[in-house]
Amino acid sequence: MAREMAEQPEAARATLTALLPLRPRLRELATGRRRVLFAARGSSDNAAIYGRYLLETWAGISGGLVSPSVATHYRSRLDLSDAVVVSVSQSGATDEIVTTQAWARDCGAATVAVTNVEGSPLAAQADLALVTQAGPELAVPATKTYLTQLVAMAVLGTALAGESDALDAELARVPDEVARMLAAATGVEDAVTALAAATYAVVSGRGLMLGTALEIALKLEETCLRPVRGYSYADLRHGPISVVTEGTAAVLVAAPGGPLLDALVELADDLTTRGARVVGIGGDARFAAACAVHVPGPDLPEQLAPLAAIVPAQLVVEGLARRLGLDPDNPRGLAKVTATDPR
Amino acid sequence: MAREMAEQPEAARATLTALLPLRPRLRELATGRRRVLFAARGSSDNAAIYGRYLLETWAGISGGLVSPSVATHYRSRLDLSDAVVVSVSQSGATDEIVTTQAWARDCGAATVAVTNVEGSPLAAQADLALVTQAGPELAVPATKTYLTQLVAMAVLGTALAGESDALDAELARVPDEVARMLAAATGVEDAVTALAAATYAVVSGRGLMLGTALEIALKLEETCLRPVRGYSYADLRHGPISVVTEGTAAVLVAAPGGPLLDALVELADDLTTRGARVVGIGGDARFAAACAVHVPGPDLPEQLAPLAAIVPAQLVVEGLARRLGLDPDNPRGLAKVTATDPR
Repeated sequence: MAREMAEQPEAARATLTALLPLRPRLRELATGRRRVLFAARGSSDNAAIYGRYLLETWAGISGGLVSPSVATHYRSRLDLSDAVVVSVSQSGATDEIVTTQAWARDCGAATVAVTNVEGSPLAAQADLALVTQAGPELAVPATKTYLTQLVAMAVLGTALAGESDALDAELARVPDEVARMLAAATGVEDAVTALAAATYAVVSGRGLMLGTALEIALKLEETCLRPVRGYSYADLRHGPISVVTEGTAAVLVAAPGGPLLDALVELADDLTTRGARVVGIGGDARFAAACAVHVPGPDLPEQLAPLAAIVPAQLVVEGLARRLGLDPDNPRGLAKVTATDPR
Repeated sequence: MAREMAEQPEAARATLTALLPLRPRLRELATGRRRVLFAARGSSDNAAIYGRYLLETWAGISGGLVSPSVATHYRSRLDLSDAVVVSVSQSGATDEIVTTQAWARDCGAATVAVTNVEGSPLAAQADLALVTQAGPELAVPATKTYLTQLVAMAVLGTALAGESDALDAELARVPDEVARMLAAATGVEDAVTALAAATYAVVSGRGLMLGTALEIALKLEETCLRPVRGYSYADLRHGPISVVTEGTAAVLVAAPGGPLLDALVELADDLTTRGARVVGIGGDARFAAACAVHVPGPDLPEQLAPLAAIVPAQLVVEGLARRLGLDPDNPRGLAKVTATDPR
């Protein structure tokens, strides 16, 4: 896992090089279609959630998530002739997602595959394949493949928004920011200590950073075998905040700017008052001051911050697994290609 | 909470009487529109998830969930002229949802409010209001208002599907099935004992029963102050199942039939092998046999089973809160009308 994390600057760069030239084809594919739906599971689903927010907030295009069971079990016929369906799977071989993509095409959708494996069933059967360039990933927890999926989402979002030279310049800086995050590791040991001492953990973010929060929660859960829950801060406030008390660690992830930052500063204060130890990732100086432990995030606009903000979180997860005496590469009970149904 | 739970048969009956005559207006409102999007939080969001599956699996209409922050914080302009947006809020006064509904209308959507309060901002400003007839709800945990929201979703789903006499006959049986569930309480004490002994709990279901699973998890979390997580079983298998071990209670909720039941039986076996104590709600005899503790569910088709399957789960939650010495009516730290952002 550590080695694959270290390969991320190069993986991000190679993926940008491979995918940016496909933006005109993405635009062409989406012409006359009104919405983009994503089909994915696990880490790929978290990347898709970022993709959806980027489309809705940056490109002004409706997004959404397909419910795979509607395709695979209920076999409903929906009219998707106004939709682009983007299927995301690292292996490109997850049955459920391959089946959902075929169903979407039968329902009239244009199909885009985001996968790390050239020639995989998902790539071969899509109208257009965005093949990420992470190289083989051996550790069970997705790191470089997740990050390159985020790059693919940024390519998709910027393609459909109409290109912006300013945002493209920031996108070109992503590999360097990823490298800087890996090298700095500021605050990571303190964050590991806070999480190791906690009896329960929650992770929260919102909007463009929601997918990052959910991915951090998933990684903590599957790599560190800790019960942990990821929430939109709006959902956290709407009930589950009642379980936050002395002994809880709360990981909050924020972009350095954007319309949600103020609310995350308030949330850090509120959770602290309830007795939680708040570990902040990213944000600005005011956010850092509101957190008990702070891990700096990238210097990127909110639209692209998720592409590098996951990196310090990976360092925390990997460090926590080792601190707990676990093998971060091979969590118990997980396979690299997931079968969600008995075969 | 117990008193309000007991009022549910009458609340369901009154809501059916009030809302069934609105089906022609719902059809009219949806004419020429291709999709239905829901805006909601908390229990209302769980009701919306059921509504979405019912539309996609029974009515053949694309559904989806609005991300409120896109409206309230990013203030994006999306083209929703092809959409009906259904906003769900018990009070009809949750700022975030009222604002999201206004935004949806500005974006071209037809708007439907599902609320328990006649004349509330949400009802007043919608093109059509489906006012549930639960009467005032005083306990913080939503019970009768949630159940009547499910009734409203069934009215919406059957309206847009084109009416079916067979399903309408089953819908008319719902109040009696709710009453039967309340009176029977079979297995409830054993389920309470299993959950009280657990160090961690997961709740799982899928498809039409996913919203029910998420609602049970939310109720356990906010009423019993237990960390608990609700998952689609597909998501549970895709990683988080690794935290299931000795000491975990797994609550599985199933309809008595449908294309997902076999997989839930397999999941019960798998979770048992991992050391979890499996509490099953609903399903059939084979499902009951695969669970350590079984609480029977309603005798309703999968499309309507969620309307009554939540009732035995409420009995379990209420019993568990009392067993733990908590007040189920007033969980700590929660307000009845939620402000998701600082004011």
